[in-house]
Amino acid sequence: MSAPSDARLADVGRLVVRCPDRPGIVAVLSRLMADAGANITESQQHSSDPVGGTFTLRLEFVLADLATRRLQLEAALAGLAGEWQFTWRLTEAARKPRLAVFVSTADHVLQELLYRVGSGDLRAEVAAVVSNHLDLEPVARAAGVPFHHVPVTPATKDAAEARALELVGDVDLVVLARYMQIVSADFCSRFPERLINIHHSFLPAFVGANPYRAAHDRGVKLIGATAHYVTAELDAGPIIEQEVARVDHRATVEDMRRIGRYVERQVLAQAVTWHVEDRVIVEGDRTIVFA
Amino acid sequence: MSAPSDARLADVGRLVVRCPDRPGIVAVLSRLMADAGANITESQQHSSDPVGGTFTLRLEFVLADLATRRLQLEAALAGLAGEWQFTWRLTEAARKPRLAVFVSTADHVLQELLYRVGSGDLRAEVAAVVSNHLDLEPVARAAGVPFHHVPVTPATKDAAEARALELVGDVDLVVLARYMQIVSADFCSRFPERLINIHHSFLPAFVGANPYRAAHDRGVKLIGATAHYVTAELDAGPIIEQEVARVDHRATVEDMRRIGRYVERQVLAQAVTWHVEDRVIVEGDRTIVFA
Amino acid sequence: MSAPSDARLADVGRLVVRCPDRPGIVAVLSRLMADAGANITESQQHSSDPVGGTFTLRLEFVLADLATRRLQLEAALAGLAGEWQFTWRLTEAARKPRLAVFVSTADHVLQELLYRVGSGDLRAEVAAVVSNHLDLEPVARAAGVPFHHVPVTPATKDAAEARALELVGDVDLVVLARYMQIVSADFCSRFPERLINIHHSFLPAFVGANPYRAAHDRGVKLIGATAHYVTAELDAGPIIEQEVARVDHRATVEDMRRIGRYVERQVLAQAVTWHVEDRVIVEGDRTIVFA
Amino acid sequence: MSAPSDARLADVGRLVVRCPDRPGIVAVLSRLMADAGANITESQQHSSDPVGGTFTLRLEFVLADLATRRLQLEAALAGLAGEWQFTWRLTEAARKPRLAVFVSTADHVLQELLYRVGSGDLRAEVAAVVSNHLDLEPVARAAGVPFHHVPVTPATKDAAEARALELVGDVDLVVLARYMQIVSADFCSRFPERLINIHHSFLPAFVGANPYRAAHDRGVKLIGATAHYVTAELDAGPIIEQEVARVDHRATVEDMRRIGRYVERQVLAQAVTWHVEDRVIVEGDRTIVFA
Repeated sequence: MSAPSDARLADVGRLVVRCPDRPGIVAVLSRLMADAGANITESQQHSSDPVGGTFTLRLEFVLADLATRRLQLEAALAGLAGEWQFTWRLTEAARKPRLAVFVSTADHVLQELLYRVGSGDLRAEVAAVVSNHLDLEPVARAAGVPFHHVPVTPATKDAAEARALELVGDVDLVVLARYMQIVSADFCSRFPERLINIHHSFLPAFVGANPYRAAHDRGVKLIGATAHYVTAELDAGPIIEQEVARVDHRATVEDMRRIGRYVERQVLAQAVTWHVEDRVIVEGDRTIVFA
Repeated sequence: MSAPSDARLADVGRLVVRCPDRPGIVAVLSRLMADAGANITESQQHSSDPVGGTFTLRLEFVLADLATRRLQLEAALAGLAGEWQFTWRLTEAARKPRLAVFVSTADHVLQELLYRVGSGDLRAEVAAVVSNHLDLEPVARAAGVPFHHVPVTPATKDAAEARALELVGDVDLVVLARYMQIVSADFCSRFPERLINIHHSFLPAFVGANPYRAAHDRGVKLIGATAHYVTAELDAGPIIEQEVARVDHRATVEDMRRIGRYVERQVLAQAVTWHVEDRVIVEGDRTIVFA
Repeated sequence: MSAPSDARLADVGRLVVRCPDRPGIVAVLSRLMADAGANITESQQHSSDPVGGTFTLRLEFVLADLATRRLQLEAALAGLAGEWQFTWRLTEAARKPRLAVFVSTADHVLQELLYRVGSGDLRAEVAAVVSNHLDLEPVARAAGVPFHHVPVTPATKDAAEARALELVGDVDLVVLARYMQIVSADFCSRFPERLINIHHSFLPAFVGANPYRAAHDRGVKLIGATAHYVTAELDAGPIIEQEVARVDHRATVEDMRRIGRYVERQVLAQAVTWHVEDRVIVEGDRTIVFA
Repeated sequence: MSAPSDARLADVGRLVVRCPDRPGIVAVLSRLMADAGANITESQQHSSDPVGGTFTLRLEFVLADLATRRLQLEAALAGLAGEWQFTWRLTEAARKPRLAVFVSTADHVLQELLYRVGSGDLRAEVAAVVSNHLDLEPVARAAGVPFHHVPVTPATKDAAEARALELVGDVDLVVLARYMQIVSADFCSRFPERLINIHHSFLPAFVGANPYRAAHDRGVKLIGATAHYVTAELDAGPIIEQEVARVDHRATVEDMRRIGRYVERQVLAQAVTWHVEDRVIVEGDRTIVFA
């Protein structure tokens, strides 16, 4: 929750380690970090099961001159990885992940992401906005972000996706910010655990199109939004974050859409923030979120 | 929200009127109430659609000597009902509706209902507790409520329902408080809009058995509970109230059950309270709740 | 909650009436509206006390050709006002109130107001942004709103307020959107019940400067924000809306400021929206909010 | 959040360690636990400040035959405590802390504590209920808990406290469950960080008597409750948990009391549960809560 002051951001690192759960792993890793001179400022761990489960550890640490000493730290980790069968991810907090944001015509989620990037609450760089419509070009331009118009029709979908991929180039995360198009399995496979969608219902309720209409017709008293990693199966990927808002019998479908927009932007922005801070780890169909 | 002080409860009435929406209906009804000497202390109304919709009005009023003057008021309403095509329900706040509560082995919802009845927050009388198990007999007995043990097996279901109906006799509302049995369509039809169930998920997600297991496996970040009127289709009746609680990746299925219990008891108690205060009106598959 | 479609917005009116509570007032007013041909689509009322209290009624109605027939409706109201001792306010939903927004250097609340005005969720016009700093001039300019830089020092406060008043001219509502200056009693008196401030705590806790620092030092587990009408006494005016967010022991003062920003913008935008929709009525030190 | 199954509860331990923050402390402690054969199932830590702050660690672990091997573990901890300047608390999850609950006439919080103890959600034993009134004797008796009636008057306060202390004997935690009496500084000093009160407002708003009356008069839109450790200064001790509920202009003081009861019972029960699970650590005027 607490962000280190910018002055020393260059020294801040994050380490995520996963391995079969086994007594002693924390002792080994914390010894390694101590020996490397790293001061651990935040530590969270989770065992999917004390017996035969997977152990996940996330550390935030301060290590003077991290950029230089990073290789040394990675060598130490590599030296132990075999014995303890762990995989790891080491990131420097100073590095801003590059995002590609796919949108359609609704601007609320894009605006929120751009606002949070601008305010520094979301430490990332929006590298490109891609849309099948032109409506949001001014929003992207005003924020100084390249905008790519890639129309999509059922017939041209494959070509459109290929074109979009080419245009966005190398990015760390793709965000579907009310994109309203179902992306292909091939597209998904290019961004494993790096493709986040916002769905405008509390999944698994109201999968698919027009969830507010369906919610209205079912007479629910809470509407919701869900941010999840995208997998080949529609609206079925691992959930990162959900939130709801209360509605009553007076709410029309249009009211639900309006109220829901504020839930959607909050949920997606929160999910993206946790992702870029290496706080989300996929475990099967579920996520671990070290919030 | 505000309850009149008990001193004058005998003078407090509630009127719910429904009719095709048409200009002037409020003027006519409020004139009728004024002429009857009733002082309206709470008024809520809803139009399902300003054009061609249904108009619903709920009034709470004070009328000195209500029990005596009730017939006069009903005659006045009857005199207008034809012309304005309205139906109405008039209740005296002093009269406590009689509830039959069906349970299985889990006590949390029953305890909550009994607590709220005892504290006066829920103005009703629990006329009987019915269960297919003996576990909760002591809970009912401690509250001075008759307990009926009616075992159910697939083969004896019809007979068991008939026996239960006989035992509970004439009640205003049947509450399925984690009863864990699917009641028959015939049973439902005997209590139209007077049979409330608590389902341990935020419907329409996780219909049917074992919703916490399903919620866990889907990796949701919010679990919920839904109180709804029971209709012949499982978990599909009009929703009265829903609420959710946050869970994280650490929550096991058992944790979800534990956390969920506190949501379930709150949601069902709220729904029953609104129902007995004539605040809930069914409109097709949805409810109007004048909270 | 439900907004009429724009097509007929010109026919939508709102009426707020206040008078000593007395049986028959609703009948009289609803008869008047029916005779005028108005179809009431939303109606809410409140009695501060059934005996000797104040009765408040808010109606939303559709009246074909409202702009033309408004005078006639007002004449009818005036004809009854004496007998029933009521005051009233009649507004046309189509007319957008003009707001002046006072800011300092923080942009989050201003951005939110501008976003909601742009999206149509807040039906108002931002007539001017006034600031004692230059930081937010680009934000106002990007939205096409006049920006006035009016520096304030303790010595020049009176002159600065006078200058600001001159610059903003005739507005319906003044919004202090994290203005960070205490406005004078004289300034307050020029905008009775038309001057809204956002305070970054759940009042009455943490009145005055640096509430997040104070909240941190007190070790609260919830931080909040409060939108209220401004009166001569600091942070003591009638509260319109409040909301809170959960924090834990990890949250620094800076974290609280960051988290709090999202609460502040939500609370102020909600309060301003309710105000411009004539949903807020001041009653002594408190507000009635017909949400 | 996750409770181990009862089958192995006897093997579950909890360790809380506090010391000046210093690189390597986690490595040392996790090595010690690994060498002792303990499998850490939950671990949370907090640094009040990476430089010169206090480090706090809470571990939950499984160690076969804990009761027997506990001394060995404590010896190992004692061997390191000097070098690392740490203090520690080691508890066996199987041992149920003994609570004394002080009440007045309101039963809702007591009922909730008894319910949660009975259901096993709160692993503790209510050793005694003490009251200055007789109203709740039946509630205590029904739960099989000794009830002590200790009347208090301003003149007899010291003697009454002495009598109460004598009657409750040796307990782990004293809970003031709407006791409505201000306990003496001497009483507080006998239960340092082991005396929890529920105050019926979101502190620091509405310190002292009649907070719902004060909340009503101030016109707040949220009412709240706060569980905190009691110190000599009234309502000023470290806050453990807070929650709020929404109210509107219709809510009378009595409505607020009624709604508030459900917030109070939830907040106090949560705070007591966290306390008995060794999740709350006092740090100056604030608490760390490893929820």
